[in-house]
Amino acid sequence: MKDVLQAWKELAAQLRVDSIRCSTAAGSGHPTSSLSAADLMAVLVSKYLKYDWNAPENPNNDRLIFSKGHASPLLYSIYKAVGAIDDDELMTYRRFGSRLQGHPNPRVLPWVEAATGSLGQGIGIGVGMAINGKYLDELPYRTWVLLGDSEMAEGSVWEAFDKASYYQLNHLIAIIDMNRLGQRGETELGWDAAGYANRCRAFGWNAIELNGHDLPAIDLAFAEALAQQNAPSCLIAKTIKGRGVEPIENADGWHGKALPPDMAEKAIAALGGERRITVSVSPPENQQPARTRAEQPLKLPVYKVGEQHATRKAYGDALAALGASRGELVVLDGEVSNSTHSDEFQKAFPDRFFEMFIAEQQMLAAGVGLARTGKMVFTSTFAAFWTRAFDQIRMAAISNVDLKLCGSHAGVSIGEDGPSQMGLEDLAMMRTVFGSTVLYPCDANQTARLVERMAETSGICYLRTTRGKTDVIYDEREAFEVGGSKTLRQSDDDRVAIVAAGITLHEAQKACDSLEAEGIRARLIDAYSVKPIDRDALFKADRDTGGRLVVVEDHWAEGGLGAAVTEAFALGTFGAGPAAQPTIVQLAVQEMPGSGAPAELLSAAGIDAEHIAQAVRELAAGKLKTAPASHGIRLDQTSGSPK
Amino acid sequence: MKDVLQAWKELAAQLRVDSIRCSTAAGSGHPTSSLSAADLMAVLVSKYLKYDWNAPENPNNDRLIFSKGHASPLLYSIYKAVGAIDDDELMTYRRFGSRLQGHPNPRVLPWVEAATGSLGQGIGIGVGMAINGKYLDELPYRTWVLLGDSEMAEGSVWEAFDKASYYQLNHLIAIIDMNRLGQRGETELGWDAAGYANRCRAFGWNAIELNGHDLPAIDLAFAEALAQQNAPSCLIAKTIKGRGVEPIENADGWHGKALPPDMAEKAIAALGGERRITVSVSPPENQQPARTRAEQPLKLPVYKVGEQHATRKAYGDALAALGASRGELVVLDGEVSNSTHSDEFQKAFPDRFFEMFIAEQQMLAAGVGLARTGKMVFTSTFAAFWTRAFDQIRMAAISNVDLKLCGSHAGVSIGEDGPSQMGLEDLAMMRTVFGSTVLYPCDANQTARLVERMAETSGICYLRTTRGKTDVIYDEREAFEVGGSKTLRQSDDDRVAIVAAGITLHEAQKACDSLEAEGIRARLIDAYSVKPIDRDALFKADRDTGGRLVVVEDHWAEGGLGAAVTEAFALGTFGAGPAAQPTIVQLAVQEMPGSGAPAELLSAAGIDAEHIAQAVRELAAGKLKTAPASHGIRLDQTSGSPK
Repeated sequence: MKDVLQAWKELAAQLRVDSIRCSTAAGSGHPTSSLSAADLMAVLVSKYLKYDWNAPENPNNDRLIFSKGHASPLLYSIYKAVGAIDDDELMTYRRFGSRLQGHPNPRVLPWVEAATGSLGQGIGIGVGMAINGKYLDELPYRTWVLLGDSEMAEGSVWEAFDKASYYQLNHLIAIIDMNRLGQRGETELGWDAAGYANRCRAFGWNAIELNGHDLPAIDLAFAEALAQQNAPSCLIAKTIKGRGVEPIENADGWHGKALPPDMAEKAIAALGGERRITVSVSPPENQQPARTRAEQPLKLPVYKVGEQHATRKAYGDALAALGASRGELVVLDGEVSNSTHSDEFQKAFPDRFFEMFIAEQQMLAAGVGLARTGKMVFTSTFAAFWTRAFDQIRMAAISNVDLKLCGSHAGVSIGEDGPSQMGLEDLAMMRTVFGSTVLYPCDANQTARLVERMAETSGICYLRTTRGKTDVIYDEREAFEVGGSKTLRQSDDDRVAIVAAGITLHEAQKACDSLEAEGIRARLIDAYSVKPIDRDALFKADRDTGGRLVVVEDHWAEGGLGAAVTEAFALGTFGAGPAAQPTIVQLAVQEMPGSGAPAELLSAAGIDAEHIAQAVRELAAGKLKTAPASHGIRLDQTSGSPK
Repeated sequence: MKDVLQAWKELAAQLRVDSIRCSTAAGSGHPTSSLSAADLMAVLVSKYLKYDWNAPENPNNDRLIFSKGHASPLLYSIYKAVGAIDDDELMTYRRFGSRLQGHPNPRVLPWVEAATGSLGQGIGIGVGMAINGKYLDELPYRTWVLLGDSEMAEGSVWEAFDKASYYQLNHLIAIIDMNRLGQRGETELGWDAAGYANRCRAFGWNAIELNGHDLPAIDLAFAEALAQQNAPSCLIAKTIKGRGVEPIENADGWHGKALPPDMAEKAIAALGGERRITVSVSPPENQQPARTRAEQPLKLPVYKVGEQHATRKAYGDALAALGASRGELVVLDGEVSNSTHSDEFQKAFPDRFFEMFIAEQQMLAAGVGLARTGKMVFTSTFAAFWTRAFDQIRMAAISNVDLKLCGSHAGVSIGEDGPSQMGLEDLAMMRTVFGSTVLYPCDANQTARLVERMAETSGICYLRTTRGKTDVIYDEREAFEVGGSKTLRQSDDDRVAIVAAGITLHEAQKACDSLEAEGIRARLIDAYSVKPIDRDALFKADRDTGGRLVVVEDHWAEGGLGAAVTEAFALGTFGAGPAAQPTIVQLAVQEMPGSGAPAELLSAAGIDAEHIAQAVRELAAGKLKTAPASHGIRLDQTSGSPK
């Protein structure tokens, strides 16, 4: 045991020295937050972690997540100690082009489980990975999550703790590096280990208080954690920030600061200098994931043209169909599955449905964890409530995760529930996510087809569904591609083109009927693929109509379908782009709605058939007034139309 | 006492009957979630609440927040019982134009403290109101928050619980209506009162378990809560969903459903029919708010043209200056005040600075609560981390609250910390908030002036600051209006206009220098007011340059400054708008950045001086290539420019 302790001590010293070396070379980074956790990680890596560094994709590997992603010097020093990277690469830390970014990123480093750096997210992702191990792959791997003490103030952490005990994730082990000091002074709870322990226990965890620099105590704590049968465990490790570098131990003002070269040199010498220890990590089990399900050919639901069905219901039906076809499909919902209709999947495949209750951040984080274990993950809630998880969505895009999101109850057309339940910013939010896809079907068959497309679409893929029933207008054999559109009405003398999607597509249909009766031909484009938008169809409409477009959406005026259309014309199109830039009239929600019947609210927002028709008439006649440059953007309401 | 009990019982029956009546008349709503809490509210309103219904603005009033906003039938029935509204108005519930929306909204109803309906937010807002009572106004009013049990799964609730005990808010009383049933079945904890109590106690609260239909027990529980000296109290009230309507008591499948008229009729009869009770609510104290501070004339900080200062530092300096001038100014930060530089205010006015630690949702919610008590509230964190509070920001806009947000460390120009810390979607997010203002200064004097402007700007007002130091280019006497812009370079033969803001303004300056040396004149517009954007300046630039604009921003390509510019040209401008629609080249971040030096990352993103100059050259020469219509939007990188 003495030899073992000495080996751990030496490894911890190397992790400290390397954490200092790489951050000092970079001139930035968080060495002090790395030093506090070095002893914990030395024991974990030497004795408990099971990992094949040559096969990071091995499903039996333990998962190690640095929820405190700023301790990346420590993580990368571990990668060096296990031989995954060499010392030369370690010293590229934070440099342009290096894989060793300021915060860990699986986009570039295969051993990183998820991008962290926005605090309070790693533990929620770990919950998803542990759910997979226990309920899906049925593999005995463990998920280890290193947390900072400051991030325990994030509500997302407690959503994760809640779900971990609810799902009895005994193979999930959290380690709180309680070093007392946050970025700007003492943390909220300081060294109050009992305070953390009480919270952990109240949330159903096994809590273990320990001295995070006492190697035998660390050893015992990990052993106790692994002995748990039903509860996740949390080590509350009292540590000292900057531990091992005496002048900055437990000192304020050293968060996120690299040691200057002279201090670093002295500190490294005091720690016994550089070492060349290579630690041998235990290999993982060699088991097959449990799930080898028989998969049937996909048989999407079919809806009769002319009937009325809600697209949210079609989403659920299609999800259930896809579930029969794809064994790796997993569905999460935020306690609204009977509204989003993901309950259709739950009824068919209860073992692959995980209720996240009203915890949207955790739903997204668990989705990231499950996606990282190879599952195809669909998640759903009201469109409005996805705003709750925007930071997690943003980070998922950094992680390069494939994740499918559905937002139901979009727009004023939900009616009586009022503005708190109306997703009116979801398109803007989802469009600005890196590499995202944004889809917005108008009928049930289109929805089913787009759910099928989502299954094969990488990155963050968002589907917006509608609360009310809408006419089925597409035959079930109609195909819909991501990036495509459908031109529903077209003639040789189209004077204006209307671009719509979802609920407004039906309003635009009615508008076209009225206009045709008056002898005004308008083209109608169903822009179900909001991102990427079908630029070719827009450019053609621009040419064919002499540059007259009306865009109508059940969404705020900023960043949604209107923006997608205007931005489409706003690139480097000087050469081979459209011959003329169009005049684009944007109809969108511009005043705060209240409650009311859907038709009343669509009319009040100026996005119903009558307003569309009036905009087309005035644009066709060249009568449209200039919009006043008041606060925000605002279309001058077409004259003669109802309030 | 018997008479009192009888009176409470009668009132509770009336609240139940009216909740049923108004929701059945509306054909929608949540009567069962109202029935469960009727006894709790009957006692509260009859005995404990202190409120002047004729003066909702009275600072001594207790605050009553329905965090479970869907129980609005109960809230509105209370309003009727106290005489604030009449029965006719009650029966307009959920109708178009009615003040009685599906979820309570202070925009239309003066007694509502904050818009709720997105769960888990009311308690955080209550924390802000209780902070005001204890630390600012120093008034003895109490803040009562009715919570649903399902929303206890939201992490934001635990952020609020955490801050409430940290700030020892003994005048904050939470009431959990533990009716066991959520929207789609049993809640996570069901009737496990001890489970809730343990969590409350672990978070520092006094927890009281009770039967929520036992009127004397409710009375005792409120009394116990009010006797607390240092801790907030939480009543965990075991209740029955649908209580009082026997066929649907504790029955699944009745969430959010109005009773059909025949059922309603029977239920009302069983409850003893309609009543006409008017309850007399105790008046509030008659005290003056403590804070009558001497206010000095505003003396903004001044920076010398030609020096370099970070706009984030100028934000902090200006905030401190504003604090001396405005006694009602309160500042919150999310444990990054030494990065956002709100610590400059904290040093000057520690009693008006509230540390929210790393809990962005709670920071925003507390800001709403403080703003609703008449404070001018500035809040700050990294631009990236505001995504964590998007739902709270969305709801604050529904509440019609004035709130000032600052996001620091925006864009790739932060450098080595990498993408998790780069705000690259904040402009899109903030622009799509209803009624918002979005400002993005490029130098220290401009920042100080815009902080001054923020103080007088209503709604959600967002300021984006930059991490690194930038040249001071504006004299301190220069004025900046919301909705304005500055044209920094202009000539009679401008061939292209560059629109930039913040960090890219400085890159554009350098680009203009190079271009002028080549004989190419470009106009340069500082679009510091991203929303509202200065459309007149854009239209003029369009006319003067023959329709050639380059927009450059340190932000994703969707929804930011580029969208603001394209959308500005995309309204009903057919008549008196710009003579020609411009060609707009959009330079924005389009690939996932890594770590690196700021200059390296600006170059890699194609938004530095060299890329701007090249785009201008090619646009001026008519050589710009068409952008490929690939995934998302993407500008074809100008040839010859560095990778």
